[in-house]
Amino acid sequence: MSLGDEPLRAPALSLRAGRLADSPISYLMTKALAHPELVSLAAGFVDLHSLPVDATRTAALELFADPTAARTTLQYNATSGDPALRLQVLERVLAQDAAALGGGRLGRAPGSVSLDRVVLTAGSNQLLFLVCEALLDPGDIVLCDSPTYFVFTGMLRGMGARAIGIESDAGGMRADALDAELARLDAAGELPRVKAIYAMSYFDNPRSVTLAQQRRSEIVRIARARARTAPIYLIEDAAYRELRFSGDDLPSLFSEPESDDCVIYAGTFSKSFSPGVRVGFGILPPALVAPVLALKGNLDFGSPNLNQRLVSEVLRLGLYEPHVAMLREMYARKRDAMCAALTRELGGVATYVRPEGGLYVWLQLAADIDTGPNGPLFACALEEGMLFVPGEYCFPDPARESRSCMRLSFGVQTEERIATGIACLARAIARVG
Amino acid sequence: MSLGDEPLRAPALSLRAGRLADSPISYLMTKALAHPELVSLAAGFVDLHSLPVDATRTAALELFADPTAARTTLQYNATSGDPALRLQVLERVLAQDAAALGGGRLGRAPGSVSLDRVVLTAGSNQLLFLVCEALLDPGDIVLCDSPTYFVFTGMLRGMGARAIGIESDAGGMRADALDAELARLDAAGELPRVKAIYAMSYFDNPRSVTLAQQRRSEIVRIARARARTAPIYLIEDAAYRELRFSGDDLPSLFSEPESDDCVIYAGTFSKSFSPGVRVGFGILPPALVAPVLALKGNLDFGSPNLNQRLVSEVLRLGLYEPHVAMLREMYARKRDAMCAALTRELGGVATYVRPEGGLYVWLQLAADIDTGPNGPLFACALEEGMLFVPGEYCFPDPARESRSCMRLSFGVQTEERIATGIACLARAIARVG
Repeated sequence: MSLGDEPLRAPALSLRAGRLADSPISYLMTKALAHPELVSLAAGFVDLHSLPVDATRTAALELFADPTAARTTLQYNATSGDPALRLQVLERVLAQDAAALGGGRLGRAPGSVSLDRVVLTAGSNQLLFLVCEALLDPGDIVLCDSPTYFVFTGMLRGMGARAIGIESDAGGMRADALDAELARLDAAGELPRVKAIYAMSYFDNPRSVTLAQQRRSEIVRIARARARTAPIYLIEDAAYRELRFSGDDLPSLFSEPESDDCVIYAGTFSKSFSPGVRVGFGILPPALVAPVLALKGNLDFGSPNLNQRLVSEVLRLGLYEPHVAMLREMYARKRDAMCAALTRELGGVATYVRPEGGLYVWLQLAADIDTGPNGPLFACALEEGMLFVPGEYCFPDPARESRSCMRLSFGVQTEERIATGIACLARAIARVG
Repeated sequence: MSLGDEPLRAPALSLRAGRLADSPISYLMTKALAHPELVSLAAGFVDLHSLPVDATRTAALELFADPTAARTTLQYNATSGDPALRLQVLERVLAQDAAALGGGRLGRAPGSVSLDRVVLTAGSNQLLFLVCEALLDPGDIVLCDSPTYFVFTGMLRGMGARAIGIESDAGGMRADALDAELARLDAAGELPRVKAIYAMSYFDNPRSVTLAQQRRSEIVRIARARARTAPIYLIEDAAYRELRFSGDDLPSLFSEPESDDCVIYAGTFSKSFSPGVRVGFGILPPALVAPVLALKGNLDFGSPNLNQRLVSEVLRLGLYEPHVAMLREMYARKRDAMCAALTRELGGVATYVRPEGGLYVWLQLAADIDTGPNGPLFACALEEGMLFVPGEYCFPDPARESRSCMRLSFGVQTEERIATGIACLARAIARVG
């Protein structure tokens, strides 16, 4: 029996796999690969030259100096991750919140949050994935900033969940708009489908906008007040929290008095240390710990122990703080370079808010300029030698999207190349204007 | 408005999360933690003392010797993983198959399999997860050995898929039984739900059984012949392939002539190098590459680059082969210790097949002895000081399960402790006998 001559049959994919379209990231990466000379201000990567070679080598040597300790590093650890690092990240977040709260209300005391609530993941993205897997069935709803992190909404789409955008301004998600949308969904009988609210609470992607202090308690209060039969979770994505260039840190949603049963805090060392080491974490409401760990057990039994022990050692040896301090200075200079170039090249043509942290500038052009991937500006910018992220990717609802904005990242390129990229963009805008 | 006095509400979990029961592993780990003095022959871990501290340190030093190369190690890589390591694993598998084929039919030439088909994951478990995510909707069917790897069937349960057990003997899955089951499913109109056949083709978990050579081509042929509108995939889990103590390697299902569109080959460095480094891989049929990468993009954008570069360096420096050779000798001695103890302590009471590789012995007791977690033997064994994996966990269909067998692992314990554990087991069996 030979079947060799039959045509290959197409696979019968799962509904989930069928929902996964090509991601915007793949599209942009294909463009970047096809034009290696391009100045990409699209990728949200960190600066290659900033990566902590010395700190990582020192921590690795220390880890491997004692063969007995080294062996446990090479063994499995708990599904939730290395207990030492879990304690370190929990204490860090509690200390950050205590410092941010300053003389105001008291933060949580160390020891007041059970270590069981901390889980380590491969970047915070995996934490977001696990939490969404634990909560969302097809048709369920997550409320997001509009605009928001397009990788997150792509993941929701893959799960068949609905992302609904909430009006978001220079102070982040508007509490009144959130409350109104929840009221509308309630009236429409859709409230039981609302499982979560997603907020990047510090220097968000794509705008570097930070959720205003007053809105933090309002949003926690609204989520709790509108919830009926089950909690509406607040997924607080704090990926960029430590990349603050100026101003004071704000207390997290997680620090709010009544957040224990509804706030999921997601953090990561990918932006502030190394994406190649790829350690992220979550602090979960107690009721979500068991389901998230069961899902993680199915997925990988726990993220690689080596990476967790390495980050733990970096923290223990005091190598982390100086690195982050260096990053803050470096990215602040790059932010300055980008803002100076924007003012110089596009002063009368585009507007933006100067970011106080993060990796992005959100550029607003005249309303009649289409920044979409099939529009004339995108093609012109490629021809002129630069790449940006079309703003429309970042809007949860196509109906409410704006097509005249873009995300620019100052993460990857040097100050000089940033200036070059903005000059290319200015020429492209002049051509389509 | 204060809601602090209201009772905490239970989360509205997803259907998937609701399907996840406590895993047998968690149950056994809880037992082991509660009784730290126990000799656990349950955990399928590798030997802590075997872990490659020197090789890992050497490779890490080499990786970090050149700051420029080190920086790329700390950066993101492609979602599919480091191209250098992908090429290394592909060439390894092709070379293993060529050697195993010997003077017989020709294996694939290096270069004949596109590198695009290789994806790196956090252990092979994540590869299994991604493939199942890409293929399975609730109600879909995967055919498995009976008994089979209980973590895999637990994952299927979480996805709402059905595992159907196929009779499996000392030569692995019976091709005739597979064909008969597919015919039965076809007659019942269920064939379109059959998405895959799962086979650990070398030294399987839980029995250390290797799929017989002749059955390999038969099974590929049956899967192709029975498939109608879409392929029935063969998921070949080769996790234990390199842990062979004696005899010659067999060519993989992946090496079969007509396997390109239906065999998924999953391998890992967790068993043969280090679970704390946690690098696994898959070689996929071309049609599954895009959906698997899209799912992986949603999950974590790619597994940690550091770990992949480290394994790549270990291979490049020639540090891997000597380590695996050492493991083979060490586990062979442990296998001997376990078999000697079983013969000495349980000669007339239990039967088993002496494994030629892997980490497990599958013990068959008299039919009236219940090895289940709530049965008398399990409790007695705990009292006597040892832990085993009840055989019933390993049967995909409760209806066809055997309750008088168990999985014993010789991976973790020393030869002396293995003997002690078997002596404890013998006392327990005597008490319930």
